[in-house]
Amino acid sequence: MSSEFGKLLRVSVFGQSHGRAIGVVMDGLPAGEAIDQEELLAFLDRRKPGKSPLSTARKEADLPVFLSGLENGVTCGSPLCAVIQNGDQHSGDYKALEQKPRPGHADYTAYVKWSGQADMRGGGHFSGRLTAPLCVAGGIAKQILARRGVYVGAHLDHIGCLYDQSFPLHPAPELFAAIAAKPFPVIDDQAGERMQAEILRAREARDSLGGAIQCAAIGLPAGLGDPMFDGVENRLAAALFGIPAVKGVEFGAGFSAAKLSGSENNDPFLLKDGAVVTESNHAGGILGGITTGMPLTLRVAIKPTPSIARPQKTVDLGTMEETELTIQGRHDPCIAHRAVPVIEAVTATVLLDLLLEGNHGTF
Amino acid sequence: MSSEFGKLLRVSVFGQSHGRAIGVVMDGLPAGEAIDQEELLAFLDRRKPGKSPLSTARKEADLPVFLSGLENGVTCGSPLCAVIQNGDQHSGDYKALEQKPRPGHADYTAYVKWSGQADMRGGGHFSGRLTAPLCVAGGIAKQILARRGVYVGAHLDHIGCLYDQSFPLHPAPELFAAIAAKPFPVIDDQAGERMQAEILRAREARDSLGGAIQCAAIGLPAGLGDPMFDGVENRLAAALFGIPAVKGVEFGAGFSAAKLSGSENNDPFLLKDGAVVTESNHAGGILGGITTGMPLTLRVAIKPTPSIARPQKTVDLGTMEETELTIQGRHDPCIAHRAVPVIEAVTATVLLDLLLEGNHGTF
Amino acid sequence: MSSEFGKLLRVSVFGQSHGRAIGVVMDGLPAGEAIDQEELLAFLDRRKPGKSPLSTARKEADLPVFLSGLENGVTCGSPLCAVIQNGDQHSGDYKALEQKPRPGHADYTAYVKWSGQADMRGGGHFSGRLTAPLCVAGGIAKQILARRGVYVGAHLDHIGCLYDQSFPLHPAPELFAAIAAKPFPVIDDQAGERMQAEILRAREARDSLGGAIQCAAIGLPAGLGDPMFDGVENRLAAALFGIPAVKGVEFGAGFSAAKLSGSENNDPFLLKDGAVVTESNHAGGILGGITTGMPLTLRVAIKPTPSIARPQKTVDLGTMEETELTIQGRHDPCIAHRAVPVIEAVTATVLLDLLLEGNHGTF
Amino acid sequence: MSSEFGKLLRVSVFGQSHGRAIGVVMDGLPAGEAIDQEELLAFLDRRKPGKSPLSTARKEADLPVFLSGLENGVTCGSPLCAVIQNGDQHSGDYKALEQKPRPGHADYTAYVKWSGQADMRGGGHFSGRLTAPLCVAGGIAKQILARRGVYVGAHLDHIGCLYDQSFPLHPAPELFAAIAAKPFPVIDDQAGERMQAEILRAREARDSLGGAIQCAAIGLPAGLGDPMFDGVENRLAAALFGIPAVKGVEFGAGFSAAKLSGSENNDPFLLKDGAVVTESNHAGGILGGITTGMPLTLRVAIKPTPSIARPQKTVDLGTMEETELTIQGRHDPCIAHRAVPVIEAVTATVLLDLLLEGNHGTF
Repeated sequence: MSSEFGKLLRVSVFGQSHGRAIGVVMDGLPAGEAIDQEELLAFLDRRKPGKSPLSTARKEADLPVFLSGLENGVTCGSPLCAVIQNGDQHSGDYKALEQKPRPGHADYTAYVKWSGQADMRGGGHFSGRLTAPLCVAGGIAKQILARRGVYVGAHLDHIGCLYDQSFPLHPAPELFAAIAAKPFPVIDDQAGERMQAEILRAREARDSLGGAIQCAAIGLPAGLGDPMFDGVENRLAAALFGIPAVKGVEFGAGFSAAKLSGSENNDPFLLKDGAVVTESNHAGGILGGITTGMPLTLRVAIKPTPSIARPQKTVDLGTMEETELTIQGRHDPCIAHRAVPVIEAVTATVLLDLLLEGNHGTF
Repeated sequence: MSSEFGKLLRVSVFGQSHGRAIGVVMDGLPAGEAIDQEELLAFLDRRKPGKSPLSTARKEADLPVFLSGLENGVTCGSPLCAVIQNGDQHSGDYKALEQKPRPGHADYTAYVKWSGQADMRGGGHFSGRLTAPLCVAGGIAKQILARRGVYVGAHLDHIGCLYDQSFPLHPAPELFAAIAAKPFPVIDDQAGERMQAEILRAREARDSLGGAIQCAAIGLPAGLGDPMFDGVENRLAAALFGIPAVKGVEFGAGFSAAKLSGSENNDPFLLKDGAVVTESNHAGGILGGITTGMPLTLRVAIKPTPSIARPQKTVDLGTMEETELTIQGRHDPCIAHRAVPVIEAVTATVLLDLLLEGNHGTF
Repeated sequence: MSSEFGKLLRVSVFGQSHGRAIGVVMDGLPAGEAIDQEELLAFLDRRKPGKSPLSTARKEADLPVFLSGLENGVTCGSPLCAVIQNGDQHSGDYKALEQKPRPGHADYTAYVKWSGQADMRGGGHFSGRLTAPLCVAGGIAKQILARRGVYVGAHLDHIGCLYDQSFPLHPAPELFAAIAAKPFPVIDDQAGERMQAEILRAREARDSLGGAIQCAAIGLPAGLGDPMFDGVENRLAAALFGIPAVKGVEFGAGFSAAKLSGSENNDPFLLKDGAVVTESNHAGGILGGITTGMPLTLRVAIKPTPSIARPQKTVDLGTMEETELTIQGRHDPCIAHRAVPVIEAVTATVLLDLLLEGNHGTF
Repeated sequence: MSSEFGKLLRVSVFGQSHGRAIGVVMDGLPAGEAIDQEELLAFLDRRKPGKSPLSTARKEADLPVFLSGLENGVTCGSPLCAVIQNGDQHSGDYKALEQKPRPGHADYTAYVKWSGQADMRGGGHFSGRLTAPLCVAGGIAKQILARRGVYVGAHLDHIGCLYDQSFPLHPAPELFAAIAAKPFPVIDDQAGERMQAEILRAREARDSLGGAIQCAAIGLPAGLGDPMFDGVENRLAAALFGIPAVKGVEFGAGFSAAKLSGSENNDPFLLKDGAVVTESNHAGGILGGITTGMPLTLRVAIKPTPSIARPQKTVDLGTMEETELTIQGRHDPCIAHRAVPVIEAVTATVLLDLLLEGNHGTF
């Protein structure tokens, strides 16, 4: 069940980068949910390549076709399958690489796991292209959540040592919408410009950059999730590490909490409009795996694009000799900004699953 | 299934801090595995409180009794159940707190989830005490792994801004053993002394500290794991976030990868004694969710102990008024060092599950 | 995860027949449910051996001790663990059998699976004794269900060709209670006497008998369950086949439906007190995997006790020679009547899980 | 996860009868398996309607298109998605029925579950048409199994009281092939002719018939499966009850075991060519949930087609009044014979999953 996640809402992703099509099955969607196609396409556009010099020149139409589960634009309760045809591939670019695993890619581990029989053209099933069907799922989840007052938003937190602002204690849906409307998804546009300049520098240096994304969800009720191994953090982390290039996940203060004292890190309880809230939110809206009702916040680390246009050391798996390779083709010098909607998508999908399950602590 | 994890090897934890007993069921253990009780108890001792001024004075015998699955010290293939009696509880200490959720604890979220009906004495099922049965499971897993040449070790990476050395590129089993034998689990004892001094300062200031732990596993074959949502990172993260106080998980370079360029972060492939290895290991032994055969490395962030002896703001859930509370009782000013064997335990258990599943990429 | 079942309510059984103890962990029970111990023990009594010449003379106290999850007789939301000590074992009886698999038992398959290292004394983890912890789980589930107007009852449907009456179209809770109060669980006591005479005849002939059990549940709302592979039938069957000696499961008319025409088997829809009901119930309360609101009915086939006091052919797995064995010890000439509460227990546990999940077809 | 099954090999079915397409995702297939398209299509042909007066006149091309997971006819290790376009629908036939649930169909339960918002044209996701993608999955599984010497076959066991022969103790692959080649899948063609005459009589009477199917698998090693809730029977039953119209599942002697004595039902162990076998096979190749190495045998009850051309009582869910309906359209007077390959398909898929998992009883 490698390419699936979820409990009551199961999401299953299929396809290889240069195969016939990629797609997603969502099993467990509630019926009667109208899906606005324009809104969905606008969401998908946010991860699309080819929009700026920061991204690969490859063009993807990425129009999802719904084979099932959606009739007249409304979910009907049976599994939804959306398919995106693959088009503009240059498999030739990858031919020479088959026996020479690219550093930082899954070429070598796929070679070992499937004894050299995997379809790894363009990264195969490991390709970032597989995040397109994830965004179809997440875009649908976001619409269903928004109808219940739950909003998910994200921004590029930092690239290298260039930081965006963090989300405020209570981010508004309008802030999420404003970031989503920007070509470069940051809160502080000046920081964004510095980041873009840095990415262009990396591109010129035939190199690439990593980054981190902060994601938040507002409107969640308190009491969702479970202790120990099936909590909100466990489920989100298990899904988020499924996004290519994610190497770290933290909630609330996360790794920074390791540098705080208890008196700093603890979030005091207060009353606000008769409801229990916390004064700060180092917990990221989760205590003991269960939502507090405060905004859920998390950060995800994205490693630098492994495809760089420099010669790199590798091993020829056919001859078992050390050699070098230089990756041709078109590649993003940074994918962190394009990953922003993907993080939103996976977060939204997990949260919808949690909301469908509800709080069954009492009966 | 909140308190369970695993696929072919299922681990299910039960018990509340001040209930009759705590314990663990391991379903799917292979038969014929001799478990050395002395070695297991030595492992359990590593997380025990009451050993130094750094830890709570509460004494726990923590002797696991095996109700099933282990006959004459050897696993017999049926589910193993180990039980640890609860003894030295001072539930009175917690009585007053019932309606006043402690900041940073799960009191409030448990109150909401179970409508005030949870047994939260001493933290209930959320207590750090539940890590004892996890260590029973992990101690057993470690013995089975070691027999196959797979070793898991960990150390306290940092507390606040005081850092231990990191693991070398290829940590030896002897290094793991040496750290395990120390009263304070670090590689560099001088760094360890500075950390301990810092913890004592926090204790005197009626405060607490967080920290981070680095864990490594050596001897894993390449090709374990799966792409996307069932990879080594997904499974480890899902389990590790089940340990109380864990707020972040990263693999290899993790969040640091966000600050590296691709040419720095990519691990070049080399040949060593005829085998494919990588020159560096920023990937932490995992590419595309699948093991590379290099050491698996991860870091986990532990938040500062939320129980501090200072007055803290909270809300009285009975009267719904803002109030203050001061936590009495005995509490660790830092739990990060005691969490080191727990991280090893959970990591080892997940890795044993992965090894039992093996590589079924081809048939 | 061999010895577990359930989705939101996970039930995990552990123990071997002649090990230290057997028990069960229930993870996902709602909090605040008072469990009447007397009622629970009365339920456990129904499966106990040693009550009549029809059953083995082995005495089991079978008093469950609750290690967690139940405080002051009320569930607290964390995993409930109940343990039953093993006492009156005569392992010597089984010693000689170790290398000679008993026909109809799991001795041989366990020998192959665990390479001869399983603890198979008294049947080990495969023993009918493991149905005691299942009844603890089911007895608790039954109490929680009854509080919501859902009642589960069962009776011995037939032994050989001697048939009890079937449940009426709408069985009343009082009927379930009446059967439960009888020493021999049938609706028609005259049929029951004939069955008992038949069992005694089998005992005298050093032989054993099988039988079938009919189980029903009333008070379930319509709309529970899911299409295809996660429906009410799928879940119940998956759990019921976990009961030792079960070799068949059918719902409603079941295999008889294969002998009916569509016009006979279809259940016409009617209105009754403003609610949609069906005139007959060949569907057993389930259409397309989803409850109709009519009583759920199922039948389970129990094979004859494989332990018989006659010489039987077997193979000595040590010498790999054909040989004979004669099983000593004490054994039930029929277990079908004792399995009646076990079928109720497993059915009730699965139904509670379904009710906790509820109908999330719309949101 | 209603429309999925499997553990290491996950099979997820999607589509509605009159939607755009139906299909299946297989996640966990081993790489390097060549799939013979002609053989696969021949297998799919066996369940196709429109071949004889016994089946509906509806024509389905049912050509699966592989979107992923299969490159140049060979599996590549990533999830395989196969899609079958829907073509020849007459949705008009069903329009009038929307508010009037058809007896014996899932119309009413779907109406309750999805609050009237399901797409139930032609039975929607509950339609027998969804068995086409199941056969794609099963046809692939059968080819992979056959390469390892595991063969799965089935025949129509009985319709009404007209019985085919049963499989012999050791059915040969040639027998499976011979049955598969027949237009009517029985062992004894004379019995088959009587059955077909009976079906035609039912058709003339505007009625329908049920039946039962016997399925067997040969070549399985001993030691597959697990005790209690994850055994071979549990997994097979859970999947088989996902096939529309299945109302009963039994293994080996099944319900007949309830009519046998222990001395009749027990299968004595013998040696044959140095291997342990059983003289008879009432256990159906499974003891304690684990394979014995003898042929696996099971029977499945198929209810009579609920769509019959007679007036039937129902309730108008719009007006909540009792009414009548007469189903128009084209329907099979019996589907049991067409279900034969479907039973094979699901059985083969579950067995491939079990074989991929292998025997990890020891390590």
